[in-house]
Amino acid sequence: MIETTTLVDQNCHGVLRTELGLGTFEAQLGRTAGPPAAGTTFFDTQTGFAVRRWCPPLLGLEPHTSPAGYLARRRELGVLEAGRRLLRGTGVTTYLVDTGLPGDLTAPEEIAAAGAAEAREIVRLELLAQQIADTSGTVDSLLANLAHAVHTAAGTAVAFVSVAALRHGPAPAAEPPDPGEVRAAAGRWLAGRRVGGRLTDPLLLRHLLWTAVATGLPLQLHAGGGEGCRANCPDGGPARIAGFAAATAGLGTDLVLLHGLPYHRQAARLAAAFPHVYVDLGPALARTGARAADVLAEVLELAPFGKLLYSSGARGLPELHVVGARVFRQAVARVLGGWAADGSWALADAQRVAEMIASGNARRIYGLDET
Amino acid sequence: MIETTTLVDQNCHGVLRTELGLGTFEAQLGRTAGPPAAGTTFFDTQTGFAVRRWCPPLLGLEPHTSPAGYLARRRELGVLEAGRRLLRGTGVTTYLVDTGLPGDLTAPEEIAAAGAAEAREIVRLELLAQQIADTSGTVDSLLANLAHAVHTAAGTAVAFVSVAALRHGPAPAAEPPDPGEVRAAAGRWLAGRRVGGRLTDPLLLRHLLWTAVATGLPLQLHAGGGEGCRANCPDGGPARIAGFAAATAGLGTDLVLLHGLPYHRQAARLAAAFPHVYVDLGPALARTGARAADVLAEVLELAPFGKLLYSSGARGLPELHVVGARVFRQAVARVLGGWAADGSWALADAQRVAEMIASGNARRIYGLDET
Amino acid sequence: MIETTTLVDQNCHGVLRTELGLGTFEAQLGRTAGPPAAGTTFFDTQTGFAVRRWCPPLLGLEPHTSPAGYLARRRELGVLEAGRRLLRGTGVTTYLVDTGLPGDLTAPEEIAAAGAAEAREIVRLELLAQQIADTSGTVDSLLANLAHAVHTAAGTAVAFVSVAALRHGPAPAAEPPDPGEVRAAAGRWLAGRRVGGRLTDPLLLRHLLWTAVATGLPLQLHAGGGEGCRANCPDGGPARIAGFAAATAGLGTDLVLLHGLPYHRQAARLAAAFPHVYVDLGPALARTGARAADVLAEVLELAPFGKLLYSSGARGLPELHVVGARVFRQAVARVLGGWAADGSWALADAQRVAEMIASGNARRIYGLDET
Repeated sequence: MIETTTLVDQNCHGVLRTELGLGTFEAQLGRTAGPPAAGTTFFDTQTGFAVRRWCPPLLGLEPHTSPAGYLARRRELGVLEAGRRLLRGTGVTTYLVDTGLPGDLTAPEEIAAAGAAEAREIVRLELLAQQIADTSGTVDSLLANLAHAVHTAAGTAVAFVSVAALRHGPAPAAEPPDPGEVRAAAGRWLAGRRVGGRLTDPLLLRHLLWTAVATGLPLQLHAGGGEGCRANCPDGGPARIAGFAAATAGLGTDLVLLHGLPYHRQAARLAAAFPHVYVDLGPALARTGARAADVLAEVLELAPFGKLLYSSGARGLPELHVVGARVFRQAVARVLGGWAADGSWALADAQRVAEMIASGNARRIYGLDET
Repeated sequence: MIETTTLVDQNCHGVLRTELGLGTFEAQLGRTAGPPAAGTTFFDTQTGFAVRRWCPPLLGLEPHTSPAGYLARRRELGVLEAGRRLLRGTGVTTYLVDTGLPGDLTAPEEIAAAGAAEAREIVRLELLAQQIADTSGTVDSLLANLAHAVHTAAGTAVAFVSVAALRHGPAPAAEPPDPGEVRAAAGRWLAGRRVGGRLTDPLLLRHLLWTAVATGLPLQLHAGGGEGCRANCPDGGPARIAGFAAATAGLGTDLVLLHGLPYHRQAARLAAAFPHVYVDLGPALARTGARAADVLAEVLELAPFGKLLYSSGARGLPELHVVGARVFRQAVARVLGGWAADGSWALADAQRVAEMIASGNARRIYGLDET
Repeated sequence: MIETTTLVDQNCHGVLRTELGLGTFEAQLGRTAGPPAAGTTFFDTQTGFAVRRWCPPLLGLEPHTSPAGYLARRRELGVLEAGRRLLRGTGVTTYLVDTGLPGDLTAPEEIAAAGAAEAREIVRLELLAQQIADTSGTVDSLLANLAHAVHTAAGTAVAFVSVAALRHGPAPAAEPPDPGEVRAAAGRWLAGRRVGGRLTDPLLLRHLLWTAVATGLPLQLHAGGGEGCRANCPDGGPARIAGFAAATAGLGTDLVLLHGLPYHRQAARLAAAFPHVYVDLGPALARTGARAADVLAEVLELAPFGKLLYSSGARGLPELHVVGARVFRQAVARVLGGWAADGSWALADAQRVAEMIASGNARRIYGLDET
């Protein structure tokens, strides 16, 4: 039996502070902009079924309790106590928290307290740029403040993350953009934006990526398929970042590909081709529930075992933290345990690889044991 | 044990009326323009093996009877009686029949009679346009007749289908084409075509799609990989329709993606991202035989369970109707039954989801219980 | 139990002649240009684990022996004796050897002698062109010598192979290039190259492909994902050759797609669509180790069984020849044996298909029994 004694969740978000009714809870399961189709519910998804499989027992109910019954018990306990019980049921010892999502979500220190674990911050580049733009009046101050903010963030954050970089315009080019073009784009952005306006200019996003690369901190990149990714989101998957990966090879900055599904095999291939490219297992497992073992096995085809990182990708609901951790542990036990049982792998190797992808790889590339 | 008591085949075609020799029967298995490679046979495919697995017992033979032995028995019974026995062995209660294929295939009412089931028509848009063009002398009459024909068809048909829309030119744009451009394209088409000439003009196809969308009837779209799809067929899969899906969101017309394999996971992702996008399971299961359970399981990763629809995609041979139904039922029983057995899903949920994808979802979106 | 009595390795390379230390041995496992990431090793991959699973017993050790222990035993036996034991443990009866790789690798006759088997040569087109260019002073002599060399090679080689054709410039066009353009490109190449310079001009590569097609010898094409394929390598997979496949249909020359993973399903689809397109199973199985059965099963979804060909894709290490053969045999036994056991396939059909993909298909398309 393969065990993973500690778990580092290398990419997650805070949870909502308010009590949730059936509709608002369901909306958090859907991960889309709108409501479910008429006659359907987001509870009838792998995520919904996995929540009902793994969470009720942590609140003293039977597995597969109905959504209404589960939410009644959740309200009975209160959002704080329910959150505490759920997060403590994950087995996560360190949370790396992307704080760049909108909404009233708990901060890293709150997650740490609720989950009796440690927490570190991942800084979202485009949010940082937007905050800088809100308080910078000129192109000069914007670019100087941005450089300073990225440098400062690198001193405390454990990683940077960019969601937008692969979603707008062509694939990130193989070289830092020309300074003159960056100034021009910054001018256009400042002139056209309102306070709080989002950064979608491909050239500025590229500038931001290269600024982050210069810090040496690991850089997490959404590789397609993730949150809010609909029509205006290119569907090429991790292949879009091959050029960027080639350009950044040997610079000393690691790239971590997030949200690979259904391109997880291509992501695994990039991790095999480039020494500095790593693959997140997060939502590819957490959102596929009963299929998580099969998806994990596919990633394990081409990716070197030292290049894989557990995450939940959870946001909003502590239930998603639970689902991520539980389906991951079960998938690891089934897949690696199965290979050990049939003689394909040595049992000691299977146990060692399980610990690597559960926590060891993350500890190494994020330097979690150094502080 | 998961059972599916009724089955709606949401996309199929009629069967050939003539007796078939070994060569003509084999050609129907291949689904390509030409003969098999020298030294090979289309019987040595998953489809061929599945026909030999499931059909001989319905004609009183052992499973895996040789092709020659099976066809001898088929001729002994006669094409009508064999067809009757085969169609009645499917368990299908309602056939939705795409009548837009060339060749002497049985009509919906004949399928209904032979199969002791109901049948409804799906109208193929490009065939409708070609028929209108054959009898329209001017651009004005062509466009007026086309609008009228689509509107009239919407009154009796259960859905529209388009095969060509994703096969010619760039991905269908996010907006209806400009009326002036439509008139110009219609003029070019009328001037250049012979009677029976096919519609391949991307702009007119786009006009046709948007005309159909306006009726509110569900619109089935071949998403790549299907019949006759070879070199001149873009290989991008369902990603090609992401823009069209975004443009039609909220208009009240459902889109059903057909022929996803090997892009079934991307199709499932689109069904998760867009409330009005549905995924057909048809040929992805029917043509993969012994692998159908695994392919079904992959689609069930990301697609909400209320968004999946059974079909056989069968055409020409009643054997393909049988294979579609049998491999689907077996796949559902294995996959959903397996998840119930290992505790991932509740048994009642598994049974409920099985009925949804076998018939319930189709009944809802095609309004089959309303008439 | 499904057995494959003989094995034709339809694409492999020679092995290194020198004794290997731990570092040089490990580098051969990685198949990338650079070293592994800090803190990781290429032994912690499916390939590394499969080598440790299958090779130690052939040298008198326990399965899963540590890398250091295995290499000590390998050195004790000596590179020749170890190579002899390993190659004779593959069960391969005929090796088709691509001799176009750089490095001091054993020639086909040496592999044959060490492995107690037969060996035939596959000629790499771009290497042939480079050798001709080294000794041709003018465009006229280059083009004439090239035509002559390809024609001559076709008399002794068993196939041609091209790695570069799908890696440079746009997808190979559907027609032979214009002779005037070929002359111009040849002139540019001659003028710009040093002795030994590589051929990367898309137009000359296309000319080379069409010259090879004219000989009628099977043409193996790297379809993406293979050796050295990193940033400058398009990631479109086998879809890139759909146009070339359409243009060469009916000309009498077979195309064999190599290195499909993770695009093996698209490769299988092309093999179903085009009578002259075949799919190599090689590295897709050899490099995925414990996952090989699952990958094989995926290829068997759409590809006609007469279109699949075993290979190891091995190069440098006889261990990779062993891994290729052993994981293939085990995968065939598991997948086809499983389908026979559950009644999906007849046992006799499963055994027959196993022999087809292990050797029969290769014997037929390469004419191995004719000489």
